[in-house]
Amino acid sequence: MSKFVYLFAEGNATMRNLLGGKGANLAEMTGLGLPVPHGFTVTTEACTKYYDDGKVLAQEVVDQIFAALKVVEGQQGKKFGDNANPLLVSVRSGARASMPGMMDTILNLGLNNVSVEGLAKLTNNPRFAYDSYRRFIQMFADVVMEIDKANFEAIMDARKEEKGVKLDTELDADDLKGIVEKFLVRYAELKGEPFPQDPNEQLIEAVKAVFRSWDNPRANVYRRLNGIPYSWGTAVNVQSMVFGNMGPTSGTGVAFSRNPSTGENVLYGEYLFNAQGEDVVAGIRTPQPIAHLEQDNPAVYAQFKEVALKLEKHYRDMQDMEFTIENGKLFMLQTRNGKRTAQAALKIAIDLVKEGLITEQEAVLMVEPKSLDALLHKGFDQKALKAAKPITKGLAASPGAACGQAVFSAEVAKEWNAAGKKVVLVRMETSPEDIEGMIASQGILTGRGGMTSHAAVVARGMGTPCVAGAGEIRVNEEEKYFEVNGVRYEEGAWISCDGSTGYVYGEAIATVDAEISGDFAVLMGWADKYRALKVRTNADNPRDAKVANDFGAEGVGLCRTEHMFFEGDRIMAIREMIVADNVEDRKKALAKLLPMQRQDFIGIYKAMEGKSVTVRYLDPPLHEFVPHTDEEMAELAKEMGLPFEKIKATVEGLHEFNPMLGHRGCRLSITYPEIAEMQTRAVIEAAIAVNKEGYNVTPEIMIPLVGDVKELKYVHEVVKATADAVIAEAGVNLEYKFGTMIEVPRGALTAGEIAEVAEFFSFGTNDLTQMTFGFSRDDAGKFLEEYYARKVFESDPFAHLDQNGVGKLVEMAVKSGHETRSDIHCGICGEHGGDPESIEFCHRAGLDYVSCSPFRVPIARLAAAHANIKFPRK
Amino acid sequence: MSKFVYLFAEGNATMRNLLGGKGANLAEMTGLGLPVPHGFTVTTEACTKYYDDGKVLAQEVVDQIFAALKVVEGQQGKKFGDNANPLLVSVRSGARASMPGMMDTILNLGLNNVSVEGLAKLTNNPRFAYDSYRRFIQMFADVVMEIDKANFEAIMDARKEEKGVKLDTELDADDLKGIVEKFLVRYAELKGEPFPQDPNEQLIEAVKAVFRSWDNPRANVYRRLNGIPYSWGTAVNVQSMVFGNMGPTSGTGVAFSRNPSTGENVLYGEYLFNAQGEDVVAGIRTPQPIAHLEQDNPAVYAQFKEVALKLEKHYRDMQDMEFTIENGKLFMLQTRNGKRTAQAALKIAIDLVKEGLITEQEAVLMVEPKSLDALLHKGFDQKALKAAKPITKGLAASPGAACGQAVFSAEVAKEWNAAGKKVVLVRMETSPEDIEGMIASQGILTGRGGMTSHAAVVARGMGTPCVAGAGEIRVNEEEKYFEVNGVRYEEGAWISCDGSTGYVYGEAIATVDAEISGDFAVLMGWADKYRALKVRTNADNPRDAKVANDFGAEGVGLCRTEHMFFEGDRIMAIREMIVADNVEDRKKALAKLLPMQRQDFIGIYKAMEGKSVTVRYLDPPLHEFVPHTDEEMAELAKEMGLPFEKIKATVEGLHEFNPMLGHRGCRLSITYPEIAEMQTRAVIEAAIAVNKEGYNVTPEIMIPLVGDVKELKYVHEVVKATADAVIAEAGVNLEYKFGTMIEVPRGALTAGEIAEVAEFFSFGTNDLTQMTFGFSRDDAGKFLEEYYARKVFESDPFAHLDQNGVGKLVEMAVKSGHETRSDIHCGICGEHGGDPESIEFCHRAGLDYVSCSPFRVPIARLAAAHANIKFPRK
Repeated sequence: MSKFVYLFAEGNATMRNLLGGKGANLAEMTGLGLPVPHGFTVTTEACTKYYDDGKVLAQEVVDQIFAALKVVEGQQGKKFGDNANPLLVSVRSGARASMPGMMDTILNLGLNNVSVEGLAKLTNNPRFAYDSYRRFIQMFADVVMEIDKANFEAIMDARKEEKGVKLDTELDADDLKGIVEKFLVRYAELKGEPFPQDPNEQLIEAVKAVFRSWDNPRANVYRRLNGIPYSWGTAVNVQSMVFGNMGPTSGTGVAFSRNPSTGENVLYGEYLFNAQGEDVVAGIRTPQPIAHLEQDNPAVYAQFKEVALKLEKHYRDMQDMEFTIENGKLFMLQTRNGKRTAQAALKIAIDLVKEGLITEQEAVLMVEPKSLDALLHKGFDQKALKAAKPITKGLAASPGAACGQAVFSAEVAKEWNAAGKKVVLVRMETSPEDIEGMIASQGILTGRGGMTSHAAVVARGMGTPCVAGAGEIRVNEEEKYFEVNGVRYEEGAWISCDGSTGYVYGEAIATVDAEISGDFAVLMGWADKYRALKVRTNADNPRDAKVANDFGAEGVGLCRTEHMFFEGDRIMAIREMIVADNVEDRKKALAKLLPMQRQDFIGIYKAMEGKSVTVRYLDPPLHEFVPHTDEEMAELAKEMGLPFEKIKATVEGLHEFNPMLGHRGCRLSITYPEIAEMQTRAVIEAAIAVNKEGYNVTPEIMIPLVGDVKELKYVHEVVKATADAVIAEAGVNLEYKFGTMIEVPRGALTAGEIAEVAEFFSFGTNDLTQMTFGFSRDDAGKFLEEYYARKVFESDPFAHLDQNGVGKLVEMAVKSGHETRSDIHCGICGEHGGDPESIEFCHRAGLDYVSCSPFRVPIARLAAAHANIKFPRK
Repeated sequence: MSKFVYLFAEGNATMRNLLGGKGANLAEMTGLGLPVPHGFTVTTEACTKYYDDGKVLAQEVVDQIFAALKVVEGQQGKKFGDNANPLLVSVRSGARASMPGMMDTILNLGLNNVSVEGLAKLTNNPRFAYDSYRRFIQMFADVVMEIDKANFEAIMDARKEEKGVKLDTELDADDLKGIVEKFLVRYAELKGEPFPQDPNEQLIEAVKAVFRSWDNPRANVYRRLNGIPYSWGTAVNVQSMVFGNMGPTSGTGVAFSRNPSTGENVLYGEYLFNAQGEDVVAGIRTPQPIAHLEQDNPAVYAQFKEVALKLEKHYRDMQDMEFTIENGKLFMLQTRNGKRTAQAALKIAIDLVKEGLITEQEAVLMVEPKSLDALLHKGFDQKALKAAKPITKGLAASPGAACGQAVFSAEVAKEWNAAGKKVVLVRMETSPEDIEGMIASQGILTGRGGMTSHAAVVARGMGTPCVAGAGEIRVNEEEKYFEVNGVRYEEGAWISCDGSTGYVYGEAIATVDAEISGDFAVLMGWADKYRALKVRTNADNPRDAKVANDFGAEGVGLCRTEHMFFEGDRIMAIREMIVADNVEDRKKALAKLLPMQRQDFIGIYKAMEGKSVTVRYLDPPLHEFVPHTDEEMAELAKEMGLPFEKIKATVEGLHEFNPMLGHRGCRLSITYPEIAEMQTRAVIEAAIAVNKEGYNVTPEIMIPLVGDVKELKYVHEVVKATADAVIAEAGVNLEYKFGTMIEVPRGALTAGEIAEVAEFFSFGTNDLTQMTFGFSRDDAGKFLEEYYARKVFESDPFAHLDQNGVGKLVEMAVKSGHETRSDIHCGICGEHGGDPESIEFCHRAGLDYVSCSPFRVPIARLAAAHANIKFPRK
């Protein structure tokens, strides 16, 4: 028979997977001889079994629970369900990873109408007994029976109002007894059956409720966001109650062994006398800072401090602890590695190294790469944020907090910004012409568009907060207002956007600047020391390249040339090229673009101080560059001096049923080699120019969307002929590299052949994910939500690289690429290049570098260090 | 040093790859002691080298050519370039496979202004000498210098008119001498330089011209259509001339050892006295049937007959031979396995078995699977066809010849057909409502749509000829005419369409019925005996299933349920379902479809006589079922009694950017499980119904577009719950199978996991090809033509399965599927299932069956036999 229940004395901290975090640590503290109330843990395997059995708690699990309970009765000298001296227990969930959204806690379980009297008599404290019982009824009703606790709070509030008091502690035993009676009546009304009086039934129902809560919608969402597998399940901890609500010498509190906000090495926390757990957080009575306990009860304080120190040394990390004082005696109810701000994480990690407790590598691992985001972007003032209520939610498209006055055009954004005003640019969607307005804005809010929309991509590059695709808002750009849920926000209205969460607020919320401390530099230094992967950046202009270079980027992994095509008067030249009927006219239009492209590359090469820059050739289908309404087409026709019909025919000819699978990428370079010729000339001439100024650039030319080596061979001939001619013209020596994106499944499948021509591979995992899964990111929204709801998918393959499918293609391509060309250089430049989980995969798959947006560079550096510390490369 | 030139005496028939077909057979005939003029072959490797060297003929090749020529001079006792007794040669191309479109022949090479006189003197036949020279000038100018031969024909014609004669043979030596002079002048005018007088230069230029012709557009198109790799290159044969134009005892001819039209075992062919090769085909003088030679020259006839018999026995196949008689002496210039009609192929193969010359397996291999098409479909009368000129060309979407009066609506098609008229339905594109009109038509012609358009798919299923996507025609359905290149064809105009070539004719062309002989049954019997792959059919209705069953289909491999959804009043029920806001309304609409679907399945099960039927669940995105113009939407709103805005909002909500990568396939069953429930009920209830009548159907339920095992698990639960409930309701035993399409790259990559749930895989290679290559079939037309032109692609991956990329995924999936489930059943149901080349791949990849459209079933059976004879399965 499997063992599904472990006494605290039987476990330890290494059994986290089986006992959950809370259970394993309770066991560990028990083993350390700390004052932990006796109890036991029902394992995560029991939870898995519960689901496998069709949501039934197996009899053998029930039997083991009661057997363990018997042992605890013996340890505590009390009997569960006893009328005179009842053993009461708490029931708490505890998964492998801490999981908000699941059922938390039921206290005082085991009480009923009879034993509450016994408890009153035994403790000679009827107030305490009824207070415990009313808490139990309310918690049980809430978390086990899903009865809204407002039903019970209303009864409490009514009594307090009647009596003219404010605090629960001002209610006496009789008040509470009366409240209990009303609670029981209300419970029976709502459930259609009386409150369960059998403690065994209470216990089993509570255990099942914990298991059920593993599968509630909030837990599922949290798991998905945090990549926690559904299959893990949760454990349940059943522990003898100790009472912080026994009177003024009792209390309960929460404390950190160091300040989780700043990292300062002092005890930090708060406690509340004569209270049970939930009162501390409920906010009705104001808890005391933990330092106050030293005056209230020096002995307990000293003991607690000693325990905290011991736990920190033992776990070699800052601890977050829960404790209860029962009639002057300290009990430890939980310890875990404490959550902390990014700033505190840096300080604590570095201090612990200084204190000799941990190694540099351990310090690196102690800082979550994602947490650095908070250090790099403005945030909201937390207090101000708490008071604010979001008016809608969109996609968290570019992190950081923005607050400003709403404006609805790039022009106004520029004007107002020049006049010293802070603005948030609100648009249905942005277009390349908005670029200067976007630069002038604190943040960007769009009503349409996804994580790869123009607004999102550009904002991430600039580090400007952006909430994209807020579907509930209706933007009227002409009349200058937006509306959400019936409320109108006019030009000049103050709004705030949180690009890290997607929330939008209809008011000004104070922001706090990002502050990069010396600790940041120290930790990043260690990260660089221990990582194997190089980190490059995706940057399409000198501005973004400069930011990334300052953040430590070791080159540009992806420069999307088409992003430059939208700026200023270039778009006209592009359109001329598209409308051209023949090669000569196309070349004429391209000749206009050449000096601008060359200048861009010069700027980027310089911003990167001569590091490698990978330039991707024109990728999007040409219809992205032309207008689509009759009105705009007429305007274009006028500007170009061409008949409207000609423009319209061109635009219609460019229509595609599935543009993602259409005429784009290298297919453009093959059908219009003159485009590749112009781009080659720009790349090479720019490199020659800067190298004359003392830089030492080796440009890398990258061809997108290659699925067959013959495509690449064809383009290679075009590129090589032009590049060699330009170099010869200049009479200089210049090395350049030629490579390809691997972003079409067939490209990955035939990578061995492609490597005959490609000197490097860059995995474009956005497109590769779309084509491997067979769904387009723009359209998948319609069913992916349902997929999550039905647990068909547990995580977003565009956020975290799908290692099982897409990853298999990456591994195959890396392997066969190296078989053909042993020194082939491999990187990734999809959005996954900035995702720590995906970076770990890239490290293990043997890539040479990852490339990500500028503000993700530090995160990627740290994630790369994590990966190499966990899985060292030989 | 490599050997690039082989004397005929040095080669043999096995050296086809190196010497080309013609060269290898000349060598073989030489070895057999047959009268073959001496000569040598420049190898295909020399051709490859020519291209590798940048279209330069290497000096070592030139040297070897002249060395070989020296040997031939010795054998012939003549000197190349000699003024008095010149050795003249022919230069002919000869690739591994016979390739129309390449340069064919230059005769009499080696003549110049001086040696022509020598030849005249030597032979005492100035007419012959000048005739030979004028032919040489014309051929050299045409094929080496690309001068239009019309230039020279005009000179010949002028002289004949002047003289008042009709035949070349009526011109005398002086006429021809004058013509030669004019030819030389015209040549110099057009080329800006005199006709080359150096025989060595003539020879080398001719060899290079052959090599160049390997890369001309016609050759490239032919190669692509026939799957011949560009890398093979061509050989060049240089052979001493013998002269059929030496006078009345000379001549030249072409003959087959059996009748290539009927297969009858008699010599078949024709010859022409006092002529060189091209005169036989030129059609100015009418050649004599070969039998006539027996009277003209019994000795030569007897010798030729003996040679033909010897060659047929030697090659164990019907031979196609060229010969020349020089002054009463027979010379063999070529032999090869003769091309033949499908009917002849059957008869010859079976006769050769009867004659003990070949085995049954060899007989099976002797019949090209594709050639069966001609037996199964009507064809045009070949003479009538020759006289006709196409007015345009579209896609050869469904094979066969159709002739009828143009009609522009399904209603008129039905009416006219009922009135005994033959009609061709001409539409911009067809839609499901046209189905009855399509059945009533001889053929279908559309202006828009590809190989998988509605018209194409339905026509192939019915075996009706169809030319689809004829982009040059403009159809005006309302005013009942179509226009092509300025010519209008009104309703009732006679037109003809060739669904095997895509040509459309603006006139009536007589058709000949398909005739399936007893030989067909014999050969198919042998094919079935030797094949390992099963052959199923893609059939969506009882009508198609019946046809396929008659053609020997062993089950339905793909029944596309959505094709039934369009017929009759079903489309309304589907639209009701789509418009429904909630599950209940959706279920109500689906309930209307259930009896119709059930009845369809009953019909199909019966048509297949109880063989396995694989039903694919709803696959296309829902927007394919709704109207898209405001007008149609308004009509629908009226019909449904719903506000127009509601319909419009629904339709707009269904819009997708990339429908191919959108909300379709299993994604529909996951978001709307009630659809899968209805379909399961229909499949199972239909099976129960027919099994009660004594059939023994095991239905196979197939889920499309699966990329992850969890998708399939989810749908499996829905299907299983319904199926088991229906079976239990009926109180019967019924087996059914549950499987999936593998058509998304990720499905193939994770097939091992998917096989945990799937009992069978069916490779949907249409979608798999699109997603693996990353291009949509609807859009790729824009660049694929350029790809072919630039030799980036040599064949259409939608016609022949891409073994290197898509095939790799298929092989991986078959392998990992079997690792999980050793008896997993694997098939293919994409269009490739009917392509012989792809069928060979499927055989080698270890699939269990292929599924193709009904009229392809015999082809697939034969191709499967070819595959297993060539690569026997253990």
